[in-house]
Amino acid sequence: MASRRATGEGPGRGGGRPVSRIDAESAVFPVEDPGVASTPGERRWRTRLHGAWNIGDNANGGYALTPVLRAMAAAAGHADPVSVTAHFLRPGRGDTDGEVATRLLRPGRRISTVAGELHQQGSLRLAALAAFADLGAGSPPGPELTLDPPDLPPPERCRHRGGLEQGVTLPILDRLEVRIHPDRAEAGASDTAEISGWIRFADDTPPSTLTLPLFADAFPPAVYAWLGRVGWVPTVELTVHVRRRPVPGWVRARFVCDDLVDGRVIESGALWDAEGRLVARSRQLGLLLGPGA
Amino acid sequence: MASRRATGEGPGRGGGRPVSRIDAESAVFPVEDPGVASTPGERRWRTRLHGAWNIGDNANGGYALTPVLRAMAAAAGHADPVSVTAHFLRPGRGDTDGEVATRLLRPGRRISTVAGELHQQGSLRLAALAAFADLGAGSPPGPELTLDPPDLPPPERCRHRGGLEQGVTLPILDRLEVRIHPDRAEAGASDTAEISGWIRFADDTPPSTLTLPLFADAFPPAVYAWLGRVGWVPTVELTVHVRRRPVPGWVRARFVCDDLVDGRVIESGALWDAEGRLVARSRQLGLLLGPGA
Repeated sequence: MASRRATGEGPGRGGGRPVSRIDAESAVFPVEDPGVASTPGERRWRTRLHGAWNIGDNANGGYALTPVLRAMAAAAGHADPVSVTAHFLRPGRGDTDGEVATRLLRPGRRISTVAGELHQQGSLRLAALAAFADLGAGSPPGPELTLDPPDLPPPERCRHRGGLEQGVTLPILDRLEVRIHPDRAEAGASDTAEISGWIRFADDTPPSTLTLPLFADAFPPAVYAWLGRVGWVPTVELTVHVRRRPVPGWVRARFVCDDLVDGRVIESGALWDAEGRLVARSRQLGLLLGPGA
Repeated sequence: MASRRATGEGPGRGGGRPVSRIDAESAVFPVEDPGVASTPGERRWRTRLHGAWNIGDNANGGYALTPVLRAMAAAAGHADPVSVTAHFLRPGRGDTDGEVATRLLRPGRRISTVAGELHQQGSLRLAALAAFADLGAGSPPGPELTLDPPDLPPPERCRHRGGLEQGVTLPILDRLEVRIHPDRAEAGASDTAEISGWIRFADDTPPSTLTLPLFADAFPPAVYAWLGRVGWVPTVELTVHVRRRPVPGWVRARFVCDDLVDGRVIESGALWDAEGRLVARSRQLGLLLGPGA
């Protein structure tokens, strides 16, 4: 792919750093002539999902969202998704081309709102709505409230996600290093549905506000620690609020499920950067498909 | 309006109960001939927002969402919004006609996903994405987790929202009875940003899964109790997960803000029905515009 045409944080930004895997494997390229009459504010892009980010046979939802977010950020003209909601309609497919459509719903000086969609093989895979802003802009000091990061053993004393008996294959662990708090790493051994741990890109690409939603969808389901092997818990809808730009290094995360009824799981999460600052909140609705449901 | 054509929970359901205010004032009517080429799965509706649901000079966001949700539920073919996200782009206008557009993104036996928009006077006011299901369907018993309702004095010992010095006019209190926990009813007197209380329709219309999002957006901002008079805190984005169908009677609610940075507020809420069962969760991103920001 002609990486010079990639949108987002590709080469040319950050002083000539080599193309990272996530940058290359979630790049989007504007389609200059969409070939059909398009509605006002609509833009089309092409992308390709890679199989290395699969959970089982499907592209991880947070990964499938990443190229859509890149296109949406470009359409918004602001860098940071302060609120993004994605509905996952059909699993994304690895090693398969995709088309992204964005529609600028409301441009604004502080906040712009954009709709985005990912299509593969002629069918809609995910639909998203997001508000973008520029978090680095600075503002007069005001009142603050924040969540403190959880206590965690250092990454080297946590468990590799691949070592958990989750019941699904995890090609994504070729791309992401995910370490789980040892107290939460035994299936069904906990009396609360909670997972905490560390995450970073395997090639040490620094986290960014565009990739925090992927981080928020890459841990085992919080019900794993409580219910045991739950297999794939598909996400119906994921909402991520990005709060600050993360510094480079490991990202710390905590996910809790306090609400499960009729096989429908609500999971709430939070992410902190290497300096312990809260960088994102997440909440998702998932479906428990396994024998426990 | 020809109420026999109204969609949702209008007359003809519930055994001939008179038209309630919320039913009449959030009714939608299909536009048979949209007059322009429409995309597949798209439907158009007309509605009218009433001024009685204003907060200050603007339609309450949850109220403006209600007709859109009615149209989306009709398009989905399922009754209950198990996940709905609305982005509020421009304030809705009371006593003004509106047009609703829905697009069925993915029909399903268990879950259908729909996009919806509200336009008034030619401009887009709100955009929504929602997954609908049928919560009354029943399913084999499985594992459950839930949130217990907060302890509250009974409604008659709580404070009317109108009695709080919030700094905005509240025409909406002609339509909704909102009672606040007395410990949270003094501006700025609490050391946590939390609001709890009771809510019901003033004409005693029973709550429904279509009106819980409105209930989730009708309390004072949780930062009120902590920061003091904060005026209007516009909602950028609101996500509501409906968990169960509520029984008739007062709905109990609790909202917490544990995350405020750069004037951007994250508020999380939960609603319980008159039997104390959790019926909805909410999370929203709001903007603190007042002098405290």
